[in-house]
Amino acid sequence: MDPMDETRARQWLGIALAEARAGRDEGGIPIGAALYAADGTLLGRGRNRRVQDGDPSLHAETAAFRAAGRQRSYRGTTMVTTLSPCWYCSGLVRQFGISRVVVGEARTFHGGHDWLAEHGVRVLVLDDPECTALMREFVARHPALWSEDIGDE
Amino acid sequence: MDPMDETRARQWLGIALAEARAGRDEGGIPIGAALYAADGTLLGRGRNRRVQDGDPSLHAETAAFRAAGRQRSYRGTTMVTTLSPCWYCSGLVRQFGISRVVVGEARTFHGGHDWLAEHGVRVLVLDDPECTALMREFVARHPALWSEDIGDE
Repeated sequence: MDPMDETRARQWLGIALAEARAGRDEGGIPIGAALYAADGTLLGRGRNRRVQDGDPSLHAETAAFRAAGRQRSYRGTTMVTTLSPCWYCSGLVRQFGISRVVVGEARTFHGGHDWLAEHGVRVLVLDDPECTALMREFVARHPALWSEDIGDE
Repeated sequence: MDPMDETRARQWLGIALAEARAGRDEGGIPIGAALYAADGTLLGRGRNRRVQDGDPSLHAETAAFRAAGRQRSYRGTTMVTTLSPCWYCSGLVRQFGISRVVVGEARTFHGGHDWLAEHGVRVLVLDDPECTALMREFVARHPALWSEDIGDE
């Protein structure tokens, strides 16, 4: 995926979206992510598990990164996430040298993806309506839970 | 701890150092952290668990944050870590509004603590010789493992 192949990015977003929907169906925060290798292999996928596991560190991107296990290099990898990554997850991408980020939507939350682009990460924002709808509905129903998840008082 | 009380910061660093030593004794990466509430209550402590759990997301600061469980607010909290926090863990501090960071040492690795200070986090670097010695010895013995832990090819 170099240059960024939008058709492939949308296919990959489908996996992250399936995670987000599963999270919603569990009563969790509907954000999903998937980490792909340079050759297109799925390395790991996951979803926000704050509610399910009582674990505030399991943002979707961290869950996908964790599921991928130890890797010697992240060169050429792509983090696909249904929502713009927060500072925590943006820091993850920058620290480990993840090459690309595919963002489902950045309307309901604008995280650190511009900062990542400034630091050489290739970023593609797909502005996917289903990603936005999932978050809009969730935030309207559970505003305090959403604030908690992003450390917003 | 406002203004930053160095005596107290050094006491708290002792807990993070105990975690780092325990990690070393387990064959792990010798970095420890602890998260303290505004009133001085220990909320969570932990150590890097890449080797022990095969989990690349468990940097020490994330381990301490996770151990603290869900919190409605991080106002007034202090993250104490034996080593300057990487971008991932710096992003954690910024996103969740952790107010202060106590850094054991920044000689063997200079992470994002300057960036945090620029964004309003109170940062105290203690330049502790035991923290530095633990890392120097570890990096000399296991350079590839250290590179892996910070995504450095």
